[in-house]
Amino acid sequence: MHRFALVGAGFIGSVHANSLMNHPDVELRTVADPDGARTEALAARTGAQPVTDIDRVFADPQIDAVLIASTSHTHASLLHACAASGKAVFCEKPIDLSLEVAAEAVAAVRASGVTAMVDFNRRFDPDHRAVHDAVQAGDIGTVELVQMTSRGPSLPPLSYLAASGGQMRDQTVHFFDLLRWITGLEPVEVHVAGSALADPAVADVGDVDTSVVTLRLDNGALCQIDSTRRTAYGYDERIEVNGSAGMIESGRRRTGAVSRYALGTTTSTGLDTGWFERMAHTYPLALGAFVAALNGEAPPSPSLADGLAAQSIAEAATESLRTGRTVEIHR
Amino acid sequence: MHRFALVGAGFIGSVHANSLMNHPDVELRTVADPDGARTEALAARTGAQPVTDIDRVFADPQIDAVLIASTSHTHASLLHACAASGKAVFCEKPIDLSLEVAAEAVAAVRASGVTAMVDFNRRFDPDHRAVHDAVQAGDIGTVELVQMTSRGPSLPPLSYLAASGGQMRDQTVHFFDLLRWITGLEPVEVHVAGSALADPAVADVGDVDTSVVTLRLDNGALCQIDSTRRTAYGYDERIEVNGSAGMIESGRRRTGAVSRYALGTTTSTGLDTGWFERMAHTYPLALGAFVAALNGEAPPSPSLADGLAAQSIAEAATESLRTGRTVEIHR
Amino acid sequence: MHRFALVGAGFIGSVHANSLMNHPDVELRTVADPDGARTEALAARTGAQPVTDIDRVFADPQIDAVLIASTSHTHASLLHACAASGKAVFCEKPIDLSLEVAAEAVAAVRASGVTAMVDFNRRFDPDHRAVHDAVQAGDIGTVELVQMTSRGPSLPPLSYLAASGGQMRDQTVHFFDLLRWITGLEPVEVHVAGSALADPAVADVGDVDTSVVTLRLDNGALCQIDSTRRTAYGYDERIEVNGSAGMIESGRRRTGAVSRYALGTTTSTGLDTGWFERMAHTYPLALGAFVAALNGEAPPSPSLADGLAAQSIAEAATESLRTGRTVEIHR
Amino acid sequence: MHRFALVGAGFIGSVHANSLMNHPDVELRTVADPDGARTEALAARTGAQPVTDIDRVFADPQIDAVLIASTSHTHASLLHACAASGKAVFCEKPIDLSLEVAAEAVAAVRASGVTAMVDFNRRFDPDHRAVHDAVQAGDIGTVELVQMTSRGPSLPPLSYLAASGGQMRDQTVHFFDLLRWITGLEPVEVHVAGSALADPAVADVGDVDTSVVTLRLDNGALCQIDSTRRTAYGYDERIEVNGSAGMIESGRRRTGAVSRYALGTTTSTGLDTGWFERMAHTYPLALGAFVAALNGEAPPSPSLADGLAAQSIAEAATESLRTGRTVEIHR
Repeated sequence: MHRFALVGAGFIGSVHANSLMNHPDVELRTVADPDGARTEALAARTGAQPVTDIDRVFADPQIDAVLIASTSHTHASLLHACAASGKAVFCEKPIDLSLEVAAEAVAAVRASGVTAMVDFNRRFDPDHRAVHDAVQAGDIGTVELVQMTSRGPSLPPLSYLAASGGQMRDQTVHFFDLLRWITGLEPVEVHVAGSALADPAVADVGDVDTSVVTLRLDNGALCQIDSTRRTAYGYDERIEVNGSAGMIESGRRRTGAVSRYALGTTTSTGLDTGWFERMAHTYPLALGAFVAALNGEAPPSPSLADGLAAQSIAEAATESLRTGRTVEIHR
Repeated sequence: MHRFALVGAGFIGSVHANSLMNHPDVELRTVADPDGARTEALAARTGAQPVTDIDRVFADPQIDAVLIASTSHTHASLLHACAASGKAVFCEKPIDLSLEVAAEAVAAVRASGVTAMVDFNRRFDPDHRAVHDAVQAGDIGTVELVQMTSRGPSLPPLSYLAASGGQMRDQTVHFFDLLRWITGLEPVEVHVAGSALADPAVADVGDVDTSVVTLRLDNGALCQIDSTRRTAYGYDERIEVNGSAGMIESGRRRTGAVSRYALGTTTSTGLDTGWFERMAHTYPLALGAFVAALNGEAPPSPSLADGLAAQSIAEAATESLRTGRTVEIHR
Repeated sequence: MHRFALVGAGFIGSVHANSLMNHPDVELRTVADPDGARTEALAARTGAQPVTDIDRVFADPQIDAVLIASTSHTHASLLHACAASGKAVFCEKPIDLSLEVAAEAVAAVRASGVTAMVDFNRRFDPDHRAVHDAVQAGDIGTVELVQMTSRGPSLPPLSYLAASGGQMRDQTVHFFDLLRWITGLEPVEVHVAGSALADPAVADVGDVDTSVVTLRLDNGALCQIDSTRRTAYGYDERIEVNGSAGMIESGRRRTGAVSRYALGTTTSTGLDTGWFERMAHTYPLALGAFVAALNGEAPPSPSLADGLAAQSIAEAATESLRTGRTVEIHR
Repeated sequence: MHRFALVGAGFIGSVHANSLMNHPDVELRTVADPDGARTEALAARTGAQPVTDIDRVFADPQIDAVLIASTSHTHASLLHACAASGKAVFCEKPIDLSLEVAAEAVAAVRASGVTAMVDFNRRFDPDHRAVHDAVQAGDIGTVELVQMTSRGPSLPPLSYLAASGGQMRDQTVHFFDLLRWITGLEPVEVHVAGSALADPAVADVGDVDTSVVTLRLDNGALCQIDSTRRTAYGYDERIEVNGSAGMIESGRRRTGAVSRYALGTTTSTGLDTGWFERMAHTYPLALGAFVAALNGEAPPSPSLADGLAAQSIAEAATESLRTGRTVEIHR
């Protein structure tokens, strides 16, 4: 039984709380958040003890592992605290919006030797994983072309966008990780074109809501990623990998199989309404992988180094978006 | 908060236990089953009190509602006990394999006035429900032809089949209910052809494993239902309703959206491996409907009368299977 | 080069004329039809000589083969004439609405030794053929359950229905043939339920427009066929064959691959508007098979005996529809 | 009746010959090609007169219109000849590999006032056209993101590639035209990344076989096009247009609707084997549009100016591929 503290009692903390409660090898001991009201509420629902002074988590010898689901700018210092106190850590992305700060935190955790994993939860979607497995098994031969689509239904608030680090760091970064994981290849250069189409005010906060990324991988293969913040038709995520021996696709997910037939048209069930509906099932699976790592059954994956690698790509992509030029990716 | 006793601690009891634990308006107080070991185990997992003397459930004033998930031949007497003790009741199908015994139990419950519902859980599948809603809204005009497919991947043990009442009463009965519910029409006659193809020993216990049912509805519309016990390709359930103004289908459900493209073929994710994988999500939804009925928010549906109606059709179908003749359905 | 006479200059004759003109091994010498105007028109379009006295076809030593596409009641006597004059014959279905008359014509043709084939053109649809090939190759193991759907968009004129022999002989007969061909099995008994739902006047001419057929095959397998004359959603033809080792389907054919995504729904290209749009491509393929038989490259298939066998099933089905009873199929 | 000369008796000339023969308003009088043998063969098959001295076409007052299907480097001078002789002209793409030479030919044709059209045949695919119509009708609101896929199954010979002008001018140019036509918007800048992955020798002739194009349109919308010369899974062409009010897709076309169901997988009919199988049906439709223009029923579309515009984009794309930089598109 692994004794967990959950740091962060907001929406995503609450999602992780459910996974923690339902995992047979996990005891959720503590919910920690500076906001007393929501900490109390989540603690009451889960039977954990509420804590508003986060430092108490790291001082508590009864805590084996920390799940970081707090606001992004706190992640790096919490990682340092985990490293210092010897607690295993499962950290929501991003590690830090500053690549330097992130790199230091990752270095500290690595030096401490604690088990650590970053929550790129899309890796645990069964369809994406089937694509990964087929590509890694060589089923489609050598990877030549990857196409990814990341489209959300509704523009986040401008205040969120202003603090997000931009579309590359906030949204597309998940797909930089998926690209590395699925192909086992590293991108070496990136070009991005972007526009603020959903709302011109997005440009005012220095961001885009529609973008097209081109990446060149270290074997010469190419990758396209389109990211949009606001569609009129729901949440749309799609991956296809074309190789020398075939193509494999993790296609649009329809939420049902109802079809209405009329003259000349068939109307069928559409897509998920949002990213959470599409991805909710991945959170317990991601936690399961972390617990398996705690049990020594598998290495922690995605590692913090994976988190850093995806962030490095996002940095270069952000620079390309700013300059209009193709940018080399350093690692 | 409704205080429940769950009667039956086997597989399906355990499924209902999860729904009961997760429903916010439900307190699962008691798990009752003559088998002490599994009762203890389920009680321990759920925090309910274990009971092996079922009568104690009905004597307990702290119990408001009973969920009957015990073996089929106990249902009728448990329904009588609910009626006598004034407890609301949510009953797994069938009410009883004997239509007469079932009718008496239903009459007793009706006379007592307790809230009662039968668990035809397929009504709560969102796709089937979308078909129901469209048909009831008149979207496809007058119903003219219904086609239903009910195919399971593996033959149950012969001992199960011998006690099951036969394929019509055990398997196809769900679709008799769906037919009535979706169309709002009553079948008036039935013809069935059946074979034992998966295993000749099925015939030895007086049953079939492959059958084709034809029903005529009271507006002249026709319905086909094919039922098979053992496919080589997983669990396959499908409904289509053709009307004067269009057709609507609840199609085969694929468990993912992965496609592998090769020369001349595309290989995609297949079907569910079994009925439980296909239908697991319906159990909490069915419980939700029962609780809504307890709250007075909606009438209990499917009612015990619906259970009886479906069983009447199964009786006639069983007779047709035996005689080879078209049989009128009396209600 | 095979020299053909085409008998019948109506719609289906005109369709066959196109196939005859485009086949590299065929010379269309004569178009024969008692209706002078349409004969002249088709002859002018094709460059063939027009003939209104049909007997001249059989007296002409320059004619090697006759394609019979005239009105149904003339087929049998034309077959006799082919047999008598030693001309190969490719005959539209049915051979004759009277099974006795048909059997005599087939016997005469067989005795004459001329090459003869009946135009069950659906056998030449590539999708149906792929199902046939897979089943015959044993890909799905032993056949256990067959499901066929035959649905047309518009009710033929009542005058047509009155002369058609009824839905079984006119519409469903194609699927009786497909069933025998795909499975290689013979039906031994049949039950049919039917209704006149599209138009009550259909009942006045002694026919139905909606029917459900159940067949038992000689290995115990079962088959369902639903036939409707008038859908609101276009032409719908579908075949599935479930076997002990898998299932294979020739699914609904959509006429395009356009999808429009909106919130909650996807609207895609629908089905063909009619049987001809769905099946037009099969006519040249069927002619190609007949020419291959003339060239000695393959036996003629479907043979006239196949035509007779399908008609025998239609007879039994018509009797079941009339009596409501299961009827044995004699051959 | 429009009297046509067909210039070019090779493969694509032969395809156009079929369309010309089958069009009711067209008389194919002349087939002209310097290669006597293939000219004779095509003339014999079509009943046209064979000509090996191309100048005779333009001197013949019995010719109203010329269909140019000869080798690419002859197109421009043939267009000048059409302009000089006052003959309407339907020209295969490209107008000329040199943009300057092409522009001069287009100017000459425009000055002459003859009816002229370029054969971007993909515009006549019904699925692509449905996308065009929906976008132009405003069904998806303002265009924001376009994604196009152009993937062929087999690498052309290196000699062909060496003379082709490169992937942008030879393959992707069709999609530059589709983009302008479907959206009604003009691209203003382009970025291309490419690789020679199918065969390193492709790089030796200065070309790529795999490329990713990013275009910015004049309303700020973005477009991606991926082009590959060699897939392992057949011919794959796909267009999707995402707008402020919805998304519409012309999806992968499957060549049939057969599905084989096994445990965990469904194997269905795959894609076309090549571009010609996918696009053969568009040639008669394109000719039909040209004849409609001759009849004054509609303006000729795509016009030569459209051809020039697509070529301008291909020029800029080729420069981007060479320099790695984003290139402005001048018109």
